[in-house]
Formats: sequence, C-alpha cells, structure tokens
Amino acid sequence: MEKYRIGVIRVLTTQDPQILHAHGDLLERYFPQFQIETRCIPDQPYGIYDEVTFQVALPKIIKLALEWAPYLDGLIVSCAGDPGVDELRKLLAIPVVGAGTATAAYSLTLGERVGIIGIEENSPAKYDRILGSRSVGYIRPEGVRNTLDLLTEEGREAVLHACRRLRGQGAEAIALACTGMSTAGIVPFLQKEVAIPVADPVIAEGIMMLGQCVHKRAN
Amino acid sequence: MEKYRIGVIRVLTTQDPQILHAHGDLLERYFPQFQIETRCIPDQPYGIYDEVTFQVALPKIIKLALEWAPYLDGLIVSCAGDPGVDELRKLLAIPVVGAGTATAAYSLTLGERVGIIGIEENSPAKYDRILGSRSVGYIRPEGVRNTLDLLTEEGREAVLHACRRLRGQGAEAIALACTGMSTAGIVPFLQKEVAIPVADPVIAEGIMMLGQCVHKRAN
Repeated sequence: MEKYRIGVIRVLTTQDPQILHAHGDLLERYFPQFQIETRCIPDQPYGIYDEVTFQVALPKIIKLALEWAPYLDGLIVSCAGDPGVDELRKLLAIPVVGAGTATAAYSLTLGERVGIIGIEENSPAKYDRILGSRSVGYIRPEGVRNTLDLLTEEGREAVLHACRRLRGQGAEAIALACTGMSTAGIVPFLQKEVAIPVADPVIAEGIMMLGQCVHKRAN
Repeated sequence: MEKYRIGVIRVLTTQDPQILHAHGDLLERYFPQFQIETRCIPDQPYGIYDEVTFQVALPKIIKLALEWAPYLDGLIVSCAGDPGVDELRKLLAIPVVGAGTATAAYSLTLGERVGIIGIEENSPAKYDRILGSRSVGYIRPEGVRNTLDLLTEEGREAVLHACRRLRGQGAEAIALACTGMSTAGIVPFLQKEVAIPVADPVIAEGIMMLGQCVHKRAN
C-alpha cells in the first residue's frame, strides 16, 4: 500500500523531538495509511492560548504551509482553534484539515447533543459554529490552564467532573477542544469512567484527512 | 494488525453476491483496517424509497442487528436515511454508524456551505438536521429516480448539472444522499468535472466507523 504523505503543523515551538512528533506518532499508530512529517512554527514556545497569540501565529502557519504543500498529499493544522485552515483551504490544492472542525463534525456522529471541554476561557468558534443548538455547553475544568495540568491527579479528576456535569446537562457525547488532551492520554481515562463517547482531536483530524485522501485516490 | 470485524446492513434484499457486497468491497479496498461481512434485510427487493418502506424496514433492521452484534466490533447501516441508527445506538454496546449522519457530518469539514444531491423527493432528515443553515439546498437530478439511472450518460449529466447548480448557489462542497451513488462510481466523475469536493456516503461511513473503532482500542 502506497502511503499518504501528510504534513502536521504544530502551533507550539519546540526543539524536543518527542514533543514535536507527539501528534504524528499517534496518527501513524492509529492510521497505517499515513506517513507523517511534523514541523512547528517559530518563536511561540507557549503556542496559541488567546486571540493575540492566534493572530501572531496565523502568517507563520500560512508561510510554512505554502512552502511545504508541494511535497505533501495532505496538511493537518493540529490545533483545535483551526488557525489558518479556512485561508489555506482556498490557497492549496491538497486537502487541509484542522483539529477543531474535524472534532466538532465527528462528535455529531456520536450523539444527539454534545458537550465541549477545553482549556481556554471560551470554546473555539468552530465548535459553536458546527454544533450550534446541538451543543449543551462548554466547560474549562477547574484548575486546568494548560496541558501539563492534565497529567496530575487533580487535573484528570477535574476533566472527569466536567464530563459528568455535561452529561447531567444532557450531553450524549463529549468533544475535546484541545489537542494537548490527546497527548495527555485523557480519552482512555474518560471513556473508562463516563459512559458516553469522547471525541479525541488527533483521532478526529486523522479520520477526516483519511476521508479526503481516499476520495482523491478514488479519482 | 488485527482487523476490526464490521457488519454492513444493506436495506435492499438481494441474492446477487456482487450487489450484496458492493459497499463492503469498497470499504475493504479503502480501509484495510476492516474485515467486512454484509447481510441484507428480507423481502425488500426495491429497498427503502419512501416513508412506508422506511417504516417496514425498521423492525427488520433492529432484529438483524440485535442477533448479529455479539459477533462484531462495529455495525454500519449503509443507507443515507439512517434507518434504525438512533434506536440501535441506544440498544447496542458496539459503535453504530449510519451513512446519512456520517456523510452530512463529513461534508462540514469540506466547505462552509454544502449542497445535497439525492434520488428521493426530499433530502433525508439527518442531512437537514446536521447541516442546518449551512445547507444551500437539495436537488433530485432531472430524470434520476433510482441508482440504475446513474449508470446512463443522461443520468450522470443530470447529476453533474445538479452539482453545478448547487455550486452556483454558493455550495463549496456536495454531500451525496444515496449510497447507490457510491457504487455507481459517480464521485470520481463529479470530482473531475466540478472543482468542489464531493462527500461519498460509503467513504464517509467508513471513516466515521474507523474513528469509533480507534477510540475503542485506545482504551
């Protein structure tokens, strides 16, 4: 089987290969169809965490993508805020997938009503846009401000508590709104503890990219 | 790689193994992760094509699924009307995916506004429910009443004409609302002729099932 060459853009600057390739490693493990290469944008060691850092990152993402695209079958912007995704879809001839749109769209197949959990103050705009009236609400778990907090006992309990609250409000599925939650391994923990399906951003971006690659090859 | 055992329910009764396995053959070709088995419901040689045949099929689909589920990792109801999918999701412990919800949700990742093309009088309820205000409308192509019409020159031109009309109305992507369009091979033809992505129901049900299988194994 010839593999699809997929580029993954990380929106946090790192020299540590293990951190850099964390999403790519998951994607290759789950989807043997993919050969993943990862690059990150420069000078944002804390990534994107508010509107200012989003706007600063945008031209860097566009520049990196334009230079890289000729060597790729598809490009993933591995961030739940989908920075640059709408712009790149218009600029590039290859499929472009953002974690945010992918996760929100995937969660619609898991249940009638969906709860959103993230680490920023508000839910990413794409989640609200796609889920509309099918969203039961957004929660930032108590005391969780970054992905490191997800590795502590308190952080994991806080996310679990948020899941249970959203389920109590009628959620039949949970959409995670931060790719850091994928690498923190929180999904297996949540799925064991709450009886509703949880949409993982890295798995969601993977299936949506695979769909577009398969469609292209069906040509 | 251990494969996922996926059952595919066809809602049209046939003894012809090539017709019966048509969707399964596509799924196995696109997704080597799957080992597909296909069964059809009894006594509906013309499948589901209106509200009466939908209601008649419903208890047959539920019965077949309940008997079969213990031997499966996941179940696909391969029909854009999603007959029995909501009911089965509540009854079964394995993932259940319907072509309709899958295709509509997938199409949201392809463009801001989506046009729907099917062969029944109205668009399936699930498409309208998921696309909401992002739908630009539904078209039943002129003269196309069943999937055999899709194999003629006139039928294919009619579908192409519908695509162009929906694009003219602002559609950035097309969601097909009939799995027969997948087996008729209309997607490669459309994608060559119109410059917007087309969501194929069999590919869409495949990626959404793969997502749920991967999530389960991540446990």
